[in-house]
Amino acid sequence: MPIAEGIKNALSSSSMIRKMFEEGIQLKKQHGADKVFDFSLGNPDIEPPPAFHEIFVKLAQEDEKGSHGYMPNAGYPHVREALAKKISREQNVNIDGSSVIMAAGAAGGLNTVFKTICNPGDEIVVTKPFFMEYRAYASNSGAKLVEAAALDDFNPDLAAIGAALSEKTAAVLINSPNNPTGKIYPASVLADLASLLAEHGKKTGRLPYLVSDEPYREIAYTENVPPFLSCYSESIVVSSYSKNLSLPGERIGYIAVNPAMSGRDEVVNGLIYCARVLGFVNAPALMQRIVASLTDARVDVSIYRRRRDAFMKILDEAGIEYTVPEGAFYLFCKVPKSKTGRNETDDKAFVEHLKKSLILGVSGSGFGKPGWLRFAYCIDEKIILASGDAFKSAMDSW
Amino acid sequence: MPIAEGIKNALSSSSMIRKMFEEGIQLKKQHGADKVFDFSLGNPDIEPPPAFHEIFVKLAQEDEKGSHGYMPNAGYPHVREALAKKISREQNVNIDGSSVIMAAGAAGGLNTVFKTICNPGDEIVVTKPFFMEYRAYASNSGAKLVEAAALDDFNPDLAAIGAALSEKTAAVLINSPNNPTGKIYPASVLADLASLLAEHGKKTGRLPYLVSDEPYREIAYTENVPPFLSCYSESIVVSSYSKNLSLPGERIGYIAVNPAMSGRDEVVNGLIYCARVLGFVNAPALMQRIVASLTDARVDVSIYRRRRDAFMKILDEAGIEYTVPEGAFYLFCKVPKSKTGRNETDDKAFVEHLKKSLILGVSGSGFGKPGWLRFAYCIDEKIILASGDAFKSAMDSW
Repeated sequence: MPIAEGIKNALSSSSMIRKMFEEGIQLKKQHGADKVFDFSLGNPDIEPPPAFHEIFVKLAQEDEKGSHGYMPNAGYPHVREALAKKISREQNVNIDGSSVIMAAGAAGGLNTVFKTICNPGDEIVVTKPFFMEYRAYASNSGAKLVEAAALDDFNPDLAAIGAALSEKTAAVLINSPNNPTGKIYPASVLADLASLLAEHGKKTGRLPYLVSDEPYREIAYTENVPPFLSCYSESIVVSSYSKNLSLPGERIGYIAVNPAMSGRDEVVNGLIYCARVLGFVNAPALMQRIVASLTDARVDVSIYRRRRDAFMKILDEAGIEYTVPEGAFYLFCKVPKSKTGRNETDDKAFVEHLKKSLILGVSGSGFGKPGWLRFAYCIDEKIILASGDAFKSAMDSW
Repeated sequence: MPIAEGIKNALSSSSMIRKMFEEGIQLKKQHGADKVFDFSLGNPDIEPPPAFHEIFVKLAQEDEKGSHGYMPNAGYPHVREALAKKISREQNVNIDGSSVIMAAGAAGGLNTVFKTICNPGDEIVVTKPFFMEYRAYASNSGAKLVEAAALDDFNPDLAAIGAALSEKTAAVLINSPNNPTGKIYPASVLADLASLLAEHGKKTGRLPYLVSDEPYREIAYTENVPPFLSCYSESIVVSSYSKNLSLPGERIGYIAVNPAMSGRDEVVNGLIYCARVLGFVNAPALMQRIVASLTDARVDVSIYRRRRDAFMKILDEAGIEYTVPEGAFYLFCKVPKSKTGRNETDDKAFVEHLKKSLILGVSGSGFGKPGWLRFAYCIDEKIILASGDAFKSAMDSW
């Protein structure tokens, strides 16, 4: 019995995304990095903005006394205040630092939130397709993910969510701009969702939280992403600097709660406690100080837009259907009709088929959506542009 | 029901250490930083060694392309290899990078280990007194801490540990140099512990892991700390750079497993998976690269030794008994006899009494050892030297 049963089972079905990422590393060693069309992982290749480099060098040179030591578990007070200003702007609320907790990335933040609000046996309702790690995050706190399929346009299906709610529902979890679909949920959908939850709360006496995982808020191609926090009193936003500043390896993000929520102080104290005992202790010190200086900085989103447009053209030419992404950096595609009699709902087979042409994507089954697959286009535009022939030849033999 | 029941209960009895730390901040604001004798938190005031600053500035100036992005979840291969060399030296084993997983500090590492090896309902045996957060770490994985009181000299009591073992025992957890006692477990004790576990394994068919939490390995005043990993096949070491490089706020550490353990690959894969889904994803990228360059660096331990000696003299003069620390930076003291009829087992009352003289310590009850208290001496020597009068006056009125 070297490891726990639950972990043994999880390992055998572990992240297809990560598996593909590791395979990509091997294939690149074998064929050369420019010969592999690796659309597997959301690992931004755009460098952090120049302002990042400046403050990074400045803080390293100063290397202020005590700056690598412990601070209060919630983060440096000045960092929480700086982020509160940014969040107030983005989320159409008026919050101060006491409603912000620095987190070790969005993954750390979500685990902290679930641990704080979920009794064992509680449920978290999520719109499908979704980032599959959510299931493990919920399970870490003894909670269960309840899946509500999205509408055909990948907006949340309020009827499905309504049917999934129960007295065990601790929270509804949304993710907009969405991974894997690139969908941005309109303000009207958020408002309807808020009404639905308020009504459910009235009926059952338990008002579920609405949790938004939104690391892609600043990667948007349409108008701005509608404010989330202001749409509902019991709202919690979890975000990170992995995408807007391209710092995924540094594990820096935050949790912010609606200051109008009932029991706000208890929730904040619970979040701080859970972040501590889950072993995060605090978000990394240096990166806290860096992001506090960069509340107006972001990567150049027009680069992603150009890649998206280039990629859509290539998919159009190959005859692969997709949903047009409004944000994030993923193209969610339908497995195409097969000329050779293959099963067009078999996304895993299509992903394997593409791999023969050195194209790496992630099967939609990995997001709870068989018959689809995800390509991440946060990679060099040259690779995207060079992938056309590979796509065409893969399609010819499919 | 704003937060989970379990968290609500935990909040009310939450870390006395952290509470004292936050109170210390308030008292310093009120009285001036040099007037408060704050021995509450293990937050090293010694700056990281000069080599840290050099590599920090160098990496910031280079700011290599892609260096803030994702790497494999276990950490950069070159970092794992560099640490394997250091660990091989310290632990008297021959390991390579494949047995090392980078972790977000020891707290992150311990949570990852427990999640990997504990089925819900399993038990982890720990020697008391111990760092109280262990209890929450175990509980996060559905495991229960089983406490085995130490001997009077604070060495593990093998009879007590033997009696605590059962078929539910997933691991025995030790911590040497010890927080709060400063005790270093001799090689003979480790060997006896290994025999005990091997025998238990033979009897029950379940060989418990032996997990060592040893962030203080390099803070030792006697001879070197005996190697741990080599003492037992099913051994796992968890450590961090919080103390030896004074980087507690940066959350960087590692897990290393004995390569001879049964099912090593499964354990390593389990650890990598658990680190990912617990939300750590990976240890912070920059700090990984920094510590890989600093495998020979450490803070100047003679500073801590000088402080320890100065502090022991002050306690001697005040008439407070303690156990002489062999490592770490804590003095574990007995609540002194009272001249005014106070209960000398009431460590909480003595801690409150000291606070009136602006002396901050942590009650032994916070480590499962009533009648004792802990002072951390990782603070400016001037403060230690200036505390003599405050201790004497506190003793006069106790």
